Amino acid sequence: MAGPLKLGMVGGGQGAFIGGVHRMVARLDGHWNIVAGALASTPERAIASGQELGLAEDRIYSDFAAMAAAEAAREDGIDAVSIVTPNHVHFSAAEAFLEVGIPVICDKPLTSTSADAVALQRAVERTGTAFVLTHNYTGYPMIRQMREMIERGDLGDLRLIHVEYIQDWLSEDLESEGVKQATWRTDPHQSGAGGAIGDIGTHAFNLVSFTTQKQLERLCAQLHSFVPGRRLDDNAHVMLDYSGGTKGVLLATQVAPGYENEIRLRIAGSRGSLEWNQSTANQLRFAPLGAAPQTITRGGPTAGEAAMAVSRIPGGHPEGYLEAFATIYSEAATLIRGGEAPLLPTVQDGVDGVKFVEACVASSQEDGAWRTL
Amino acid sequence: MAGPLKLGMVGGGQGAFIGGVHRMVARLDGHWNIVAGALASTPERAIASGQELGLAEDRIYSDFAAMAAAEAAREDGIDAVSIVTPNHVHFSAAEAFLEVGIPVICDKPLTSTSADAVALQRAVERTGTAFVLTHNYTGYPMIRQMREMIERGDLGDLRLIHVEYIQDWLSEDLESEGVKQATWRTDPHQSGAGGAIGDIGTHAFNLVSFTTQKQLERLCAQLHSFVPGRRLDDNAHVMLDYSGGTKGVLLATQVAPGYENEIRLRIAGSRGSLEWNQSTANQLRFAPLGAAPQTITRGGPTAGEAAMAVSRIPGGHPEGYLEAFATIYSEAATLIRGGEAPLLPTVQDGVDGVKFVEACVASSQEDGAWRTL
Amino acid sequence: MAGPLKLGMVGGGQGAFIGGVHRMVARLDGHWNIVAGALASTPERAIASGQELGLAEDRIYSDFAAMAAAEAAREDGIDAVSIVTPNHVHFSAAEAFLEVGIPVICDKPLTSTSADAVALQRAVERTGTAFVLTHNYTGYPMIRQMREMIERGDLGDLRLIHVEYIQDWLSEDLESEGVKQATWRTDPHQSGAGGAIGDIGTHAFNLVSFTTQKQLERLCAQLHSFVPGRRLDDNAHVMLDYSGGTKGVLLATQVAPGYENEIRLRIAGSRGSLEWNQSTANQLRFAPLGAAPQTITRGGPTAGEAAMAVSRIPGGHPEGYLEAFATIYSEAATLIRGGEAPLLPTVQDGVDGVKFVEACVASSQEDGAWRTL
Amino acid sequence: MAGPLKLGMVGGGQGAFIGGVHRMVARLDGHWNIVAGALASTPERAIASGQELGLAEDRIYSDFAAMAAAEAAREDGIDAVSIVTPNHVHFSAAEAFLEVGIPVICDKPLTSTSADAVALQRAVERTGTAFVLTHNYTGYPMIRQMREMIERGDLGDLRLIHVEYIQDWLSEDLESEGVKQATWRTDPHQSGAGGAIGDIGTHAFNLVSFTTQKQLERLCAQLHSFVPGRRLDDNAHVMLDYSGGTKGVLLATQVAPGYENEIRLRIAGSRGSLEWNQSTANQLRFAPLGAAPQTITRGGPTAGEAAMAVSRIPGGHPEGYLEAFATIYSEAATLIRGGEAPLLPTVQDGVDGVKFVEACVASSQEDGAWRTL
Repeated sequence: MAGPLKLGMVGGGQGAFIGGVHRMVARLDGHWNIVAGALASTPERAIASGQELGLAEDRIYSDFAAMAAAEAAREDGIDAVSIVTPNHVHFSAAEAFLEVGIPVICDKPLTSTSADAVALQRAVERTGTAFVLTHNYTGYPMIRQMREMIERGDLGDLRLIHVEYIQDWLSEDLESEGVKQATWRTDPHQSGAGGAIGDIGTHAFNLVSFTTQKQLERLCAQLHSFVPGRRLDDNAHVMLDYSGGTKGVLLATQVAPGYENEIRLRIAGSRGSLEWNQSTANQLRFAPLGAAPQTITRGGPTAGEAAMAVSRIPGGHPEGYLEAFATIYSEAATLIRGGEAPLLPTVQDGVDGVKFVEACVASSQEDGAWRTL
Repeated sequence: MAGPLKLGMVGGGQGAFIGGVHRMVARLDGHWNIVAGALASTPERAIASGQELGLAEDRIYSDFAAMAAAEAAREDGIDAVSIVTPNHVHFSAAEAFLEVGIPVICDKPLTSTSADAVALQRAVERTGTAFVLTHNYTGYPMIRQMREMIERGDLGDLRLIHVEYIQDWLSEDLESEGVKQATWRTDPHQSGAGGAIGDIGTHAFNLVSFTTQKQLERLCAQLHSFVPGRRLDDNAHVMLDYSGGTKGVLLATQVAPGYENEIRLRIAGSRGSLEWNQSTANQLRFAPLGAAPQTITRGGPTAGEAAMAVSRIPGGHPEGYLEAFATIYSEAATLIRGGEAPLLPTVQDGVDGVKFVEACVASSQEDGAWRTL
Repeated sequence: MAGPLKLGMVGGGQGAFIGGVHRMVARLDGHWNIVAGALASTPERAIASGQELGLAEDRIYSDFAAMAAAEAAREDGIDAVSIVTPNHVHFSAAEAFLEVGIPVICDKPLTSTSADAVALQRAVERTGTAFVLTHNYTGYPMIRQMREMIERGDLGDLRLIHVEYIQDWLSEDLESEGVKQATWRTDPHQSGAGGAIGDIGTHAFNLVSFTTQKQLERLCAQLHSFVPGRRLDDNAHVMLDYSGGTKGVLLATQVAPGYENEIRLRIAGSRGSLEWNQSTANQLRFAPLGAAPQTITRGGPTAGEAAMAVSRIPGGHPEGYLEAFATIYSEAATLIRGGEAPLLPTVQDGVDGVKFVEACVASSQEDGAWRTL
Repeated sequence: MAGPLKLGMVGGGQGAFIGGVHRMVARLDGHWNIVAGALASTPERAIASGQELGLAEDRIYSDFAAMAAAEAAREDGIDAVSIVTPNHVHFSAAEAFLEVGIPVICDKPLTSTSADAVALQRAVERTGTAFVLTHNYTGYPMIRQMREMIERGDLGDLRLIHVEYIQDWLSEDLESEGVKQATWRTDPHQSGAGGAIGDIGTHAFNLVSFTTQKQLERLCAQLHSFVPGRRLDDNAHVMLDYSGGTKGVLLATQVAPGYENEIRLRIAGSRGSLEWNQSTANQLRFAPLGAAPQTITRGGPTAGEAAMAVSRIPGGHPEGYLEAFATIYSEAATLIRGGEAPLLPTVQDGVDGVKFVEACVASSQEDGAWRTL
C-alpha cells in the first residue's frame, strides 16, 4: 500500500452529524486522509469547519463547484470526494465532481427526486467516474454472511422477508424546536418525498436487495405522520412482492419510544432461515430446516469468506456501526486504486432507493394500491 | 372453596393434541375434575380414550348429543364442558350443551364459518348459559399487565401495533404424510376458510384486541400458501387500521424454519412502548418516552394488580404456556361459581375472530383490498 | 393408568409457600389427588388449612404421627406423603411415615443436620420404603438433556463447572419485619447451619451432581452475611474440586438486588460446552469445539430422548418451573406404582446436600480451608 | 485542534495481532498519525513492516533504543510511542523512551515481573514523562457509566463483585502447532508468571478496580492448566476480599469451547446492582432495589456525563471494542497536549496488575492460601 488516499468532503461541517461519522470511518483502516473540504453552505462556517479539521487554508472551499475545479487542477488533488449534505444537494454536488473526473462517495438516499437520481446515474455512466453510495449497513460482516449463504442456496427458495428499522428520535415535534437534524429531515424540499421511508426505509429496502439479490416486483404502502404538523411521513408499513414468489413486509418508524436504531432482518426459505439484529450485530442466527438453530459469529468458526474479509478483530470483541461503515470506505479505496470491490453499493442501488421511496409515497396516496418501481 | 368442579370434554381423545393440554391446565389450580367425555368420533376410540383417563363407564359417551342429555339429567352432572374438537364441530357441540344449560369452554377459533359463529352467539344469548373461549395467551400475567398499563394511559395515544406469530411446523407438506394435526388444520372443511390466519392469526389478532381494547376499522391482507398443494394459507401478512388512528401490522406464518412458536407483540404510543415475546413470557419491556427502558417481571416489584392476580410463584421462576392457559380455566371456574371474571374471552371475541379470518381471506382474494369485519 | 394416586401432605398450610407449589405440581399430570394432611403445627390452622383444600374431616390431622398411624391403618390410605415443613422437621416426619411403609416425597434440604440426614438414610434403607427428594430443577427437560449429553461424552473431558444461583429477596432485613419465609429460613434452629448455601446452594450443587455425575473431592468456601444481624449466611462463594481434575465455582446469594431466581449452569469440557439459564429454561446452548454454538430447544429437532420424555407441549411454548417440578411428582408416581424412575433424586442426594452445607460452613469458619464432604 | 500528534510504535509488525489494533484505534478519532516504528525484532521484518505502513525510510528502526535516541533528536520527533511487544520487552522499551522524555503508551500487562513493574514505575516518577497503560476496556462508555454510578452511591454499600472473562482460543495445544500468539503467551519467559491470569485476568481485575475504586485486601486463587504440556495457567478461579467488606470472585479461562471473549461484570450493593457484558457492550443493566431493572444505553436518555463524553454516534448504533480502545488513545492525546484525562489507566494500575498476577500464582502454589498484593 502506497499510503493513504486523499479525500475531500462536501457538507459535514460544524453542527452536522453524519460528516463526522464519515471522517471517522474514512480514517479507521488507514486508507484515507482528509485534505480538502467545502464543509458548509456559508463561507464563515465553511472556514471555521475546515480550520477545525486542520485543513490547509487553500483547500478550504466555500462552494463545491469551486472545490471541484480547484482540486481537479491540482497536482496533488483529492482522489475522491465524500458528499454528506442534505439529500437535495447530492445531485448537483456529485455531478460537479464526476464531470471533472473525481470519484464520488455519496451519502444515501441518492437524491431527493427520482428525476435527479436518473440524471445522476446518467452522469456516472457518461463520465465513467467511480461512484459509491454509502449504504453502510451492507458493510456489516454478518450482512455479508447472509448474502453469501443465500447466494449459495443455504435457505432454499426464499419465502419470507421481514425487515424493520425502528427508531424513536422523532417521537416528538423536534423540528418545531429547531433541532437541525429534525428540521431538514422532515422538510420535503431538502429530503424529498419520503420522511422515515426515505431516511431509514431505504436502508431496510437496500439490506433486503443486498442480501437476497431479489428484484422487487411491486409494493403496497401505508405512510403516516403521527406527530401533528409533521410534513413528511414518520412511519411506514409496506408489503412487498419479490421475484420468484417471495413475500415481504417492511416496517420503518421514527416515532416508537424506546427504540434507538433497531434493525431486524429475517429471511426464511424452504430449507432454513436467517435473522440478524443490529443490536447484536456480530451474531447471525441460522436455523436450517430440521436442525438446531446456530449462532454464526463474526470471526467464529463458521463465518464464511465474505464475513472474514471485512472483519478486523477476533470474535467476541464486538465490531459495530463504524467498522461496518469503514468497510465501505476501505472498499472504495480499493476500487479507486483499481481493484475489485463488487459488493459496494452503486448508483443503481441509489436509483432503486429513490424509486422505492416514490413508489411508497404514490401507493400510500392511493390508499395502498400496488405499485411497481 | 367447596372442592373442584366437574368437567366434561368433547374431543381430545387418543391421538389428539390440544385435549391433553386442556386437561393439564384444568387440573393445575385444583378447580376441576374431569369426570365425563365424548372424546372421539368413533365409539371404539371414545371408549378407549375414556378408560385411559379413568372415567366411570357410564360417563364415557360416543356422541356429544347423548352426553349433553345424560349429563343434564344427572344429579351429579358436569358443571361445564370443554369442546376441543376440530373447528367445524364447535358450533353443533357447543349448542347442544348450551341448550341444556351446561356452561361451555370452547377452543378457538369459535367456528369454521361466520354464519356458525353468529348462530352460536345467538345461542349463548338465548340460553343465558356461560360461554368461555380459550384464547389462552390472554392468561399470561405480562399480557394482563400490558392491558392494565394501556388502559391506564401509560403509553399515551396508541400509534403502532406490530404483532407476529411465527411457526415452522408446516414448513413441509406434512398433510400428505398423514400427520393428523396437519391434516385437519389444512382442510378447509374442518378448519374453515383460514389456515395460518385462522389457527394462529386469530390468536395474534385477539392479543391485540385484549391488550389495547381497540376496534379494528379495516384491514388489507395478503394470504399465501408456500407449500405446493396446500389447500389453505400457511402465511399471512396483514395491515390493520384501528380506531383512533392506530396503525398495525400482523404477521402469521407456519412455514419459517427455525421458529417454533414465536409470538411478539409491540405496541407503541405517544408516551411509551411495550414489547412482549412469548419466549421470555415472564418479562415485559416498558420504554417510557425519554427514560430508560425497564423490564417489568411477573412477580417483580413493578408488576401490577392484574398480573399479580394470575401469578402463582415468585418472580424469576418461569411460568409458561400451561400456567397462562390454566388461568382461563380457573377464571372459568370463578365465573361458573357465580363470581366475576371480566377478562375471560367471550363469544363476542370468537365472532370477531371468525370475521377477522373471513375478512382477511376476502381481502386477499381481491389482491389486498381494504375490508371491514 | 388406574386413576390418580392418593397423596397426603405434612406442612404447607395457610401462610406457607412451598406447600401450594407441591399441590399444583402434584395435580398437573393427573397422577395425584390430595386426600389427607397434617398441614400446620397448631390444630386450628391445621383444620382451617385442611378445610380450605376440601379434605374429608377425618383426614385432617393436627400431627404427623397421628396421620401416619391412621393412614397406614386405612384401607384407602394414602399412597405417599409429601413433607414440606421447615427443614428441622423433615427427619422426624419422614421417619414416621417410612416406618409404617408409606412412601415419602420430601422437600430439600433433606434435614437440618448431617446426623439427621444419615439417620434418615438408614431409615430408608432399613424400611425399604420409597423416598424421593424434590430437587425440582432436575426435572427441567434441558437439565435432563445436559446430563444425557455429558454422559454420552459430547463435551469430552470436563474441565470447568460454573454454577450460580442469584436472588435478591433477602437484600433487606425481612426477618426483623416478621416475614414468615424470611424468619424460618434465617433461623439456624429451623434451617440448619446454612442460610443461602442451604436454601439455594444445595440446589446449585445438586444440579452439578445431576448433570455431570461427578464426585466432589473437596471444597473451599467463603460464607458471609451482608445484612446486619442476620444469623445465617446470605451469600456463598465456593471453589470446587471434582473427580478427574474438573474445577468448579459455585456462587449462591440472596442479597443481590434485581436478581429474582437467576440460575446459570455452565459446563465446559475438552470438546464442547453447555450453558443453561433458568430464565430461558426451554433452551440449552451447546457449543461444540470448532463449530457454531447451537440452541437446543425443548421439543426442538435436536432434543434428545431424556428431554422429550419429560416434555409436555410443543417447542416454543415455554414450560417452566412448575412443569419441571411436576416431573418429579410424576416420576414419583411411576416409582410408587412399581416402575422405573432412575433420574429421581434420592436420599443419597439429600445426604450429600447436607454434608455439602456443613463442609461449606466448616471451610468458611476456617477461612477457606479445603474440606471434603 | 492543531492537527494530529505523531506516534511511533515498538512491536506490532508483520504477524503480530495487537499492533494493528493499536494503529486502527489511534487513527479513529483523528488525533494520531503513525510516523515511526521499530516494528519487529529482526531488521528485515522491521523494514518490511515499516514499508507496509508507508513510514518514511529514516523512521523505520530495527531497534527501540536507536529509535528513542533518533526521535528525541529530531525537530519533528514523535509525540509519543506505543509499546506493543510481548510483555517481557515492555520494561526496557518503555524506559528507553521515558528517559528521553517521549511519552509512552504501553500495552498490558505492564511487565513480565513485579520487579520490572516497580522499576518502571520509578522511571515514570523520576522522568516525569507521561505514561498510559492500555487497559482498553475502561474506555467502554458503559464501563465509565458504572464507575460514575458507583462513585455517586447508586448501589449503596458494595457487597458483591462477580467478574469473568471467558475465552476458548487456547482450548487446544496451539503452541505446539506454532501459532505465534499462542507461543509467546504461553511462554513464561515472554509473558511472565501468569498465563490466562496475566493475559485476561488482569483485564478483569482492572475493570473491577476502575469501576469500584475499591482496594483489594487479599485473594485466594486456584490456577490450572487443562491442556497437557502447557507451561502457564489457562484457567484461573480467584476469590477476592475488597476493602469495606466487599466480596468478589474472578473467573478467567482460555479453554472453554464456544466462548470467544465473554466478559461479564456484575456488581451488587445494598441499594442496587449493575451488570455489563461485552457482547452487549452498549447496554448496562441497572437494578435499583425494589424497582424494575432498567437498561441504560450508550447515548440513551439516562446515560450520564462520563458515558456521553466518550460516545461517538447515536444510541442503537453499536460502538464496540475498537471505539472503546480509541478512547484510550484520544485521552492520551489530550493528556500529552496538556489537558486532563483523569480516567486513563496509569503505571500504578500496571504495577497493581503485575502484583495481582504474582499474588495469584503464589496463592495457587500454596493451594489457595490467602495472599495480599
